[in-house]
Amino acid sequence: MKLGICSAILPDLSLEEVVEFAAREGFACVELMCWPKGKAERRYAGVTHVDVSALRKREAARIRDLCSAAGVCISGLGYYPNPLAADAAEARVYINHIKKVIRAAEALGVGVVNTFVGRDPARSVDGNWPVFMKRWPPIVKFAEDHGVRIGIENCPMLFTADEWPGGKNLAHSPAIWRRMFEAIPSKSFGLNYDPSHLLWQRIDYVRPLREFAGRIFHVHAKDARIDADRLADAGILATPLQFHTPKLPGLGDVDWGRLFSVLSETGYDGAVAVEVEDRAYEGSLQRRKDALRQSARFLRQFVS
Amino acid sequence: MKLGICSAILPDLSLEEVVEFAAREGFACVELMCWPKGKAERRYAGVTHVDVSALRKREAARIRDLCSAAGVCISGLGYYPNPLAADAAEARVYINHIKKVIRAAEALGVGVVNTFVGRDPARSVDGNWPVFMKRWPPIVKFAEDHGVRIGIENCPMLFTADEWPGGKNLAHSPAIWRRMFEAIPSKSFGLNYDPSHLLWQRIDYVRPLREFAGRIFHVHAKDARIDADRLADAGILATPLQFHTPKLPGLGDVDWGRLFSVLSETGYDGAVAVEVEDRAYEGSLQRRKDALRQSARFLRQFVS
Amino acid sequence: MKLGICSAILPDLSLEEVVEFAAREGFACVELMCWPKGKAERRYAGVTHVDVSALRKREAARIRDLCSAAGVCISGLGYYPNPLAADAAEARVYINHIKKVIRAAEALGVGVVNTFVGRDPARSVDGNWPVFMKRWPPIVKFAEDHGVRIGIENCPMLFTADEWPGGKNLAHSPAIWRRMFEAIPSKSFGLNYDPSHLLWQRIDYVRPLREFAGRIFHVHAKDARIDADRLADAGILATPLQFHTPKLPGLGDVDWGRLFSVLSETGYDGAVAVEVEDRAYEGSLQRRKDALRQSARFLRQFVS
Amino acid sequence: MKLGICSAILPDLSLEEVVEFAAREGFACVELMCWPKGKAERRYAGVTHVDVSALRKREAARIRDLCSAAGVCISGLGYYPNPLAADAAEARVYINHIKKVIRAAEALGVGVVNTFVGRDPARSVDGNWPVFMKRWPPIVKFAEDHGVRIGIENCPMLFTADEWPGGKNLAHSPAIWRRMFEAIPSKSFGLNYDPSHLLWQRIDYVRPLREFAGRIFHVHAKDARIDADRLADAGILATPLQFHTPKLPGLGDVDWGRLFSVLSETGYDGAVAVEVEDRAYEGSLQRRKDALRQSARFLRQFVS
Amino acid sequence: MKLGICSAILPDLSLEEVVEFAAREGFACVELMCWPKGKAERRYAGVTHVDVSALRKREAARIRDLCSAAGVCISGLGYYPNPLAADAAEARVYINHIKKVIRAAEALGVGVVNTFVGRDPARSVDGNWPVFMKRWPPIVKFAEDHGVRIGIENCPMLFTADEWPGGKNLAHSPAIWRRMFEAIPSKSFGLNYDPSHLLWQRIDYVRPLREFAGRIFHVHAKDARIDADRLADAGILATPLQFHTPKLPGLGDVDWGRLFSVLSETGYDGAVAVEVEDRAYEGSLQRRKDALRQSARFLRQFVS
Amino acid sequence: MKLGICSAILPDLSLEEVVEFAAREGFACVELMCWPKGKAERRYAGVTHVDVSALRKREAARIRDLCSAAGVCISGLGYYPNPLAADAAEARVYINHIKKVIRAAEALGVGVVNTFVGRDPARSVDGNWPVFMKRWPPIVKFAEDHGVRIGIENCPMLFTADEWPGGKNLAHSPAIWRRMFEAIPSKSFGLNYDPSHLLWQRIDYVRPLREFAGRIFHVHAKDARIDADRLADAGILATPLQFHTPKLPGLGDVDWGRLFSVLSETGYDGAVAVEVEDRAYEGSLQRRKDALRQSARFLRQFVS
Repeated sequence: MKLGICSAILPDLSLEEVVEFAAREGFACVELMCWPKGKAERRYAGVTHVDVSALRKREAARIRDLCSAAGVCISGLGYYPNPLAADAAEARVYINHIKKVIRAAEALGVGVVNTFVGRDPARSVDGNWPVFMKRWPPIVKFAEDHGVRIGIENCPMLFTADEWPGGKNLAHSPAIWRRMFEAIPSKSFGLNYDPSHLLWQRIDYVRPLREFAGRIFHVHAKDARIDADRLADAGILATPLQFHTPKLPGLGDVDWGRLFSVLSETGYDGAVAVEVEDRAYEGSLQRRKDALRQSARFLRQFVS
Repeated sequence: MKLGICSAILPDLSLEEVVEFAAREGFACVELMCWPKGKAERRYAGVTHVDVSALRKREAARIRDLCSAAGVCISGLGYYPNPLAADAAEARVYINHIKKVIRAAEALGVGVVNTFVGRDPARSVDGNWPVFMKRWPPIVKFAEDHGVRIGIENCPMLFTADEWPGGKNLAHSPAIWRRMFEAIPSKSFGLNYDPSHLLWQRIDYVRPLREFAGRIFHVHAKDARIDADRLADAGILATPLQFHTPKLPGLGDVDWGRLFSVLSETGYDGAVAVEVEDRAYEGSLQRRKDALRQSARFLRQFVS
Repeated sequence: MKLGICSAILPDLSLEEVVEFAAREGFACVELMCWPKGKAERRYAGVTHVDVSALRKREAARIRDLCSAAGVCISGLGYYPNPLAADAAEARVYINHIKKVIRAAEALGVGVVNTFVGRDPARSVDGNWPVFMKRWPPIVKFAEDHGVRIGIENCPMLFTADEWPGGKNLAHSPAIWRRMFEAIPSKSFGLNYDPSHLLWQRIDYVRPLREFAGRIFHVHAKDARIDADRLADAGILATPLQFHTPKLPGLGDVDWGRLFSVLSETGYDGAVAVEVEDRAYEGSLQRRKDALRQSARFLRQFVS
Repeated sequence: MKLGICSAILPDLSLEEVVEFAAREGFACVELMCWPKGKAERRYAGVTHVDVSALRKREAARIRDLCSAAGVCISGLGYYPNPLAADAAEARVYINHIKKVIRAAEALGVGVVNTFVGRDPARSVDGNWPVFMKRWPPIVKFAEDHGVRIGIENCPMLFTADEWPGGKNLAHSPAIWRRMFEAIPSKSFGLNYDPSHLLWQRIDYVRPLREFAGRIFHVHAKDARIDADRLADAGILATPLQFHTPKLPGLGDVDWGRLFSVLSETGYDGAVAVEVEDRAYEGSLQRRKDALRQSARFLRQFVS
Repeated sequence: MKLGICSAILPDLSLEEVVEFAAREGFACVELMCWPKGKAERRYAGVTHVDVSALRKREAARIRDLCSAAGVCISGLGYYPNPLAADAAEARVYINHIKKVIRAAEALGVGVVNTFVGRDPARSVDGNWPVFMKRWPPIVKFAEDHGVRIGIENCPMLFTADEWPGGKNLAHSPAIWRRMFEAIPSKSFGLNYDPSHLLWQRIDYVRPLREFAGRIFHVHAKDARIDADRLADAGILATPLQFHTPKLPGLGDVDWGRLFSVLSETGYDGAVAVEVEDRAYEGSLQRRKDALRQSARFLRQFVS
Repeated sequence: MKLGICSAILPDLSLEEVVEFAAREGFACVELMCWPKGKAERRYAGVTHVDVSALRKREAARIRDLCSAAGVCISGLGYYPNPLAADAAEARVYINHIKKVIRAAEALGVGVVNTFVGRDPARSVDGNWPVFMKRWPPIVKFAEDHGVRIGIENCPMLFTADEWPGGKNLAHSPAIWRRMFEAIPSKSFGLNYDPSHLLWQRIDYVRPLREFAGRIFHVHAKDARIDADRLADAGILATPLQFHTPKLPGLGDVDWGRLFSVLSETGYDGAVAVEVEDRAYEGSLQRRKDALRQSARFLRQFVS
């Protein structure tokens, strides 16, 4: 496996600085954010380390050379909008950009694009299904045609009241992944696996490593702490941030030893990218860099 | 405390038969269902052991005599509709009937009417609040005026997809009860406490016994079993019956010894009514009677 | 379900006395031991409450009348030898007697005969398989022809050094049952389910209730206590009685509430027969009777 | 084993009434309190069901006849003062009365007298030892001479600030019992075993059943609930009632199934006397009687 | 947060050597011991890395320069006597020295002095209160006047029989801190927080991080291992070293990930100083230095 | 303690390369494999880093110089055959080679030779005892005479069906070690302690550290993960690899903090050699080297 970082936490660094930081700290790879320029719909979004709209051959070659010189590979391109937005026009904008990211991945020789399936939060899983079946097969086909695999992150995108009730991403449980992959069995359609979102849903975050072994294209290393006292008062029907907190690896409840123990047996040999969404470590660029370093120190005891 | 039964599970018995069954099996009390005749909107609803529309003084006296002769008291009258239904006209029908039940309670000398607060399931707790604040104070005032206390059952009324996302009853967690009782501080507004719904919400079902001690007007003895395997696959965002099953006391995960241990210290001296909603025991009248007997055998080791 | 007793613990009572005891104590049924007269190869074996060798029509009718008059049914006939004994001649004796028990069951109108699959303890599961496949299909066919179902008890018959290493009964785990029922798919071939033997093997004794739902023909209510201190010193490779002790229901580690919770949902409606193999309760006939009574008091809180 | 009651909770009943109550409720025995008349130094003390000062042969015979007629035996005589009181004169009064209780036991044919070793609470265990070694050997010798065994209850007598720091009874842990019995190896010196006091001390209350098997002369069935929230705030150095509550069997944290499971194997065949010290059940004589009945219902599933 | 060391474990090193060691090993700060010269009343006491009696301006400037040149800050000055000693004259000596340490802190520009509240071990918490209220307000006032904050370490100073029963430091539980800070609400009066002493008292060592967030002035990183077998025999009333052992971070039962997880959210940005009191690592200076290095390797996975 | 490696995982490296690798990675010692050349009876066997058959004084001196120059000591020589093989001639070959390894240890100044006691897997522990008592005392005597201690690894050598039922090494539990050391009390006969094999046997792997403190001559750092789902289906009577997987330290269920916590108190100051038998890390020499590095990173937080 290759330990890396998600660039979303370093929006104030240029691509060159991100790659140089990763190299200096011994990370083997980076997942580069590819949001459209100038747009930031929510925390951790809107970061543009590769401007896929403007990516010409020459620029692609420059980026490849940059990474190659630094000894840091690009584990994936990341862009996490809501392609199942209720407003079809809005969704079209997102899907068009996803396609640009796919093309950029092809140009950069990066095999994986990470994104969300999306969801109309006002409707149930079943209520979203027809739209999913209409919008997603063409995206997956497009990725296949360009030799790129799509890694769907398993975040419910449900944290606070504004995302209530359904969140903005259908793909949040093994039960739903199973249904998704039966519906779209393409080998280019898989997961960007983040155990922290499974943890607070009380989902076993180790068992799926085997069942979905061939479908795991990318891994996010993020942790979460369940606050038992708050859960005991508010219950699981409350909005999730009422009872859990996203944290750096090692500061939450994920059992990383067991996770890597099984992951090391499934043949997974891809990236494990540290994703920092821990507000206690966001006060300054220095602090965010420290967060990445600390996460690496913690994770390196479980992964080579 | 007084061990009793909820009459909802015995719809095929007349009031006389219910009372006689309770007496013969040594139950001290019954919660009598008071749905409008002929109406059954969902499982366990629509049962009419007291027809409150038609309740004249004479009939009330007859019922009181009947119970008194059998040595069985009426712990409460029960009617569980959705007074916060989105359709105001529909809600009005429910609220009018609640008032009839309150009047019947007064006539029968029964101190408690059990019901739901209700909820528009399509809206969040905050989204329901203005309607709650409009519709409920008058109901509570009405109850106060008639010397009756309202016990709100803490069921989220969220089991399957048709109740998704919010369920049909706001009052499902201590955090929300706190808010409710601050908003309507009347001493006639309290809880019909059922630990089984707290259990699967991962809410501590013992701690609130102290905080809400004076607010607990009635207790339902129902249990629930969390099915760990199914939860580990579907997660807490799935509809609740995907990961838990309502069961008889003793066949679920509630620690009844601890529950009664603390309840016995809070000064609660009211009814603990066995509520059967265990499908494995609903095949026949005989089976449902057996369910009540078995529940009593289980509970009597913890309660006098 | 019907709460009953295994007659093996009452060898000093006649059939009439067994049935009368069961009736007086409110048990609904009895599993009657049918060992050949005069033979007692090990503890709890060699008990003959029905002498199947000598069973004529007239005697069968008498027994049926006796039970019917007492209101006690026969849940099964029991005979637990080793039909896979290494010595083929010895095995033939056992198999012949099993067939007599099957015929007796037919004559008595009893649907179930309980026994062991047996095992050559000196050989592995695979090593026993060819003999299993040779000896068992004809027995099952014989049972089918006589309208009787065979319930294989899931005891490994491995307690002390003389049964080491393999024990005297193959059918000790869900993994092996699966293989057995694939090999002999007859609907007359199933289980006499005893959770106590699964417990000390660290096997989930609740999950198989669903997978093998249609295969559970009879249930033994026995418990076992794992002695953690002894296990921590001797380990799981020691002979099993070095780290566990068979006990009455409620005095061991089986979670009977959960067991009955799931069993009550699988459609099982047969016998649950208390099997006493707790040496602390074997000092006298009085003590053994007390053991059956105490077990019933414990179990009746979970079963009707 | 014989299920019984401690008479301390029924001070308002006469001996005759105590025995009659026990008989009617099916208890096999009673531990009778023998405090000097008119004295009540603390809660649950000062009860005199047998006035040992005045016990003549004739009265002894009358009591024996009374019990024998009711089918209720006397499991022990109880008197729980502080024979290691710092004030030697005070201690002498207690010891003299203990001797009277021993003589009464002899006269009544009762084999066991239950009491405390006592302690000067201001001194450590070691600080108390010389006084223990001076005062106790003669008492034990006296008991031996009269054919009576002394059962020391294992209560630390440390609940609230007035008993701080050491409590009023040395004999509160297996480590100390071991030292006691090495110092005074008489077979007439043993324990009145109460698991509830071991529980809140975090002492294993099952393991000593084997080590001290021959030393357990009497058992008290009392339970205790540890209140985790309060302990987490105050810690184990707080006075014990700050973090635990004495409760009826089944309403606390003692695992009675496991306790009786092992007790049933140690050869113990004596009394298990329900001791009620649960303030939630002390409101009236009726309530205290209910407490005894409820405890019996709970315990009878584990004991014959 | 700043990872540092307590200098008490390096008594054989000079101040210069301590600072140089800290710098070389990458520690950001040191807590310097300031016992009066020549005095060592117990293990880990009596260490003098700053001689506060003799501290002139010039020496203070030299120390500041030394640290500044090494890039190591002084997290606090430490001196841990018993200011509530029963002997008022003895206490006066301690308090006078505490004041000297406070003045030294001012001179050195160090914001925190760490010490104990002290206790007369022969008296209860309440029994100590009047003396606490007499002696402590002036000390706190003195600290305020000199711009220094007092961090009270939460050790009960109760390990072995000589400190029995009450230990030598009142401030051992959140319940008592609450009382202390209500009595002396000065913002200069707070805690030197050491989770290891809370652990063996069964106190939640994470929850207080929020309640006392503004009061935590310094943190000691020490761990402790509870020895379950010994506790199960001796119980919580035994002297504490009978059932627990102080250990290096990572070799005990503290969940450091959870501790730092919450600490990182409370705004705490001060020192976390490794305190070595693990006898397995005290054989030589080399071994004690190794202990500090190993502790740092362990802790750095949780803290930046 | 000294962190080291077992050379068995590096069969493709020469002795020189093994020593150089250890030195470069900061390991303090190596356990060198000494199988006869050309022989490889099973996975991880057959490795020859020291050819003991051909070891002349000169070669021994060269090896000593090599290690000394690299600053790496030899923690032990390892050769793990089956000296209790049923075939006495086969066993003789093994025992002769063990003696050669002992002589080589003497020549190299290495104090410890690690091996197995062996076992005839077809016979019980008792069945093997007479052969153990015949073959082992002379080997131990031989070791004593050459100033070498024998460390018996505690692996049952029971993983798959071919080793069923008894495995190929008697010395797999504390209960058996106790018996072994009573039978052969020589101070040169002890253990090469590997907690991973105790873990899956459900044996306490911390408690024996004290009981067998003087007998622990060498430690293997290997971990194992119990796969609960598979165990729950197959049970403890299945062959062990059906329910557990050997893993690198940190990727299994061993609590290394607790292990080192107690080990650090027992006076053990010898080698802790990382033994890699994790198939997920065996794909290439690079991967196996990474496994050793990762294990070291994990372990160094617990050991100096």
